[in-house]
Amino acid sequence: MEAIPTDPLARLRAATASRSAAGLRRTLRPRTPDDDGLVDLASNDYLGLARDPRLAAAAAAAAVEWGTGSTGSRLVTGSTQLHAALEDRLREFTGAAGALVFSSGYLANLAAVAALGRGGLVVSDAGNHASIVDACRLSRGRVVVTPHKDVEAVEKILADRHEDHAVVVTDAVFSVDGDLAPLADLHAAAVRHGALLVVDEAHSLGVIGKGGRGAVHALGLAADPSIVRSVTLSKSLGSQGGAVLGAPEVIETLVDTGRSFIFDTGLAPACVAAALAAVDILQIQPELPGYVRARAHEVAAMARDLGLETNDPAGAVVSIVLGAPEAALRGAAVCADNGVRAGCFRPPSVPVGRSCLRLTARANLSSDDLVAIRRALTAVAEMKVNA
Amino acid sequence: MEAIPTDPLARLRAATASRSAAGLRRTLRPRTPDDDGLVDLASNDYLGLARDPRLAAAAAAAAVEWGTGSTGSRLVTGSTQLHAALEDRLREFTGAAGALVFSSGYLANLAAVAALGRGGLVVSDAGNHASIVDACRLSRGRVVVTPHKDVEAVEKILADRHEDHAVVVTDAVFSVDGDLAPLADLHAAAVRHGALLVVDEAHSLGVIGKGGRGAVHALGLAADPSIVRSVTLSKSLGSQGGAVLGAPEVIETLVDTGRSFIFDTGLAPACVAAALAAVDILQIQPELPGYVRARAHEVAAMARDLGLETNDPAGAVVSIVLGAPEAALRGAAVCADNGVRAGCFRPPSVPVGRSCLRLTARANLSSDDLVAIRRALTAVAEMKVNA
Ligand SMILES: Cc1ncc(COP(=O)(O)O)c(C=O)c1O
Ligand SMILES: Cc1ncc(COP(=O)(O)O)c(C=O)c1O
Repeated sequence: MEAIPTDPLARLRAATASRSAAGLRRTLRPRTPDDDGLVDLASNDYLGLARDPRLAAAAAAAAVEWGTGSTGSRLVTGSTQLHAALEDRLREFTGAAGALVFSSGYLANLAAVAALGRGGLVVSDAGNHASIVDACRLSRGRVVVTPHKDVEAVEKILADRHEDHAVVVTDAVFSVDGDLAPLADLHAAAVRHGALLVVDEAHSLGVIGKGGRGAVHALGLAADPSIVRSVTLSKSLGSQGGAVLGAPEVIETLVDTGRSFIFDTGLAPACVAAALAAVDILQIQPELPGYVRARAHEVAAMARDLGLETNDPAGAVVSIVLGAPEAALRGAAVCADNGVRAGCFRPPSVPVGRSCLRLTARANLSSDDLVAIRRALTAVAEMKVNA
Repeated sequence: MEAIPTDPLARLRAATASRSAAGLRRTLRPRTPDDDGLVDLASNDYLGLARDPRLAAAAAAAAVEWGTGSTGSRLVTGSTQLHAALEDRLREFTGAAGALVFSSGYLANLAAVAALGRGGLVVSDAGNHASIVDACRLSRGRVVVTPHKDVEAVEKILADRHEDHAVVVTDAVFSVDGDLAPLADLHAAAVRHGALLVVDEAHSLGVIGKGGRGAVHALGLAADPSIVRSVTLSKSLGSQGGAVLGAPEVIETLVDTGRSFIFDTGLAPACVAAALAAVDILQIQPELPGYVRARAHEVAAMARDLGLETNDPAGAVVSIVLGAPEAALRGAAVCADNGVRAGCFRPPSVPVGRSCLRLTARANLSSDDLVAIRRALTAVAEMKVNA
């Protein structure tokens, strides 16, 4: 038997030191209520609703009427009429047959993929969000990761499978690169092979499709029984939580067997109410999603004009690849010096060599904000040239 | 190649039909603001704080000041000064060296166990909560499940291991049975073998130990560097969310590598503020945890006197084993008929044959409530005799 180290923290310290040497340490920087006076291009508050007084009023009223916590699992005391109202509203808004609210988008993905894929074949895009990757692992099925947006690879794996059931899972808009999945083709492949298609609309709800109804709705597939959608309430809806949208059979399966549904406390009433208010606003202001997409195009065009490597944003997310982790850190610092908060993404959030700035457009960016953004991007481009 | 079913929902329908036949279907019953007029013995609102106006006021103020969502990952825009204040307060209150807030207790457990156990040996009690079971699976380490509260088994596995690092993980108070883990012995075993001990204090924070500081604090081990605690903000603290408490090395590891920390939106400000207010209340009303334990003993004694199979509650959880799923369902219905909401636990939440009522005491149960509870338990005992 080998000698066992006696200090279990020594190993953690050593690992932290290597991350430090590789430029991969993270620090939490708690922000102030006014976001340190910076123009926010780092949050996922795409419609600017997180600071909307209508959402705050709804949240405050719910905390008083329903309490500050839901007090239990959704199966025990954690389902209130407010949760049911949000489920009805999400269903109506997105055109889904059923909806089920979770305490986070992360846990919604875990339940959807793990419960529906259990013991079967799970085919997952290489660019999928970490919560989907974890969900695949929890499915205890055969997980096959396909190259990014490679429908042919998906089709081949479905055709060659020996499992009787299969799930294909993809982000609709990929969270860091900001590109759109080939949903129509994936759907056709899934249908041809009797598979379910799970689509994570975290970055498309409220941003893409008619009035922000998302990418699946935009394809006219909202009521398709072989499509399951997951959404978050924490991005365009300015709150916290998640939901799964799908056929009644899917919802029943998650209620009975979704571990991260059954064994988790229901979403807090204040968050439920804020999300409800956000959907209300989307219904009376259906122009908001168009604004955010237009702003994203402006920001991406600025970056391209300045010679930066950027994407063609499908939704709100503009990414600017800078390469090494240190370059991304420096880029974010340069943005901050110029009054702009940019997201800085390094491994493991992105592949090695693809560290980047992630800029998220907001529906309520002002022309002053756009001036600051141009100044910041100009400084980043200069930094790159001088590197 | 076998024929592939063309309707992926047919399989789900068939599975739902079998669960139905086995008495294992679940229905969501959204409750009203006054909890349908029932005495609540089903929630985890142990101190009755979820409906406390001080928490509601704090939540409402935070939604206005900070917004209804945290807007991003804790590493990007999701850390506010309010999150930092809650982490400071949890640290001080529990005597931990460091604290890190998550959007749920579920995701706190996933990060703690998966990040600390990664690629090592993970030893998990057979009675651990589902979130710990999922966390073990996500660790990609060698997972060994030991019999319930069997310290000798844990010690043997630690001694015989070939991995350089190991994590032992246990609930402090088990969520359905309500019994206490052998924490002192587990800690001694972990220390002897250079392992970390992860203790889930979901059902002990606010209930056990001096002023509700939990089971680890009660043993004088709050600052022990080899102990990592997870807590939820969704039970005694009447809010939503979770936290990990531990040495700075542990917190740094989770900030840098905890997937369910990095890739999840930070806890909503309203929930952060409600939890902060709850800790404040615990500090000025240190007698609350004693009340809940006393009530739990009264309820358990009533059940025992009526000939029901019950536990000796370490905290707030009183369980009454009724056996078959149908018996538990009927027991819960009998309780409701007598004005009491009881939790009804069936597989997969409990082992087959151990379906039970789960009654949770609250610090603010009145003597009228206790009369109703006695009436309900009497009816359950009669039901059992007549079965
Ligand atoms: C694509 C995607 N799915 C799921 C999630 C998780 O959602 P939540 O933060 O609400 O847990 C996120 C981000 O956090 C995401 O980007
Ligand atoms: C022992 C235990 N750990 C963790 C959790 C998860 O906490 P949360 O509901 O805050 O996600 C629960 C219950 O939900 C629990 O009972």
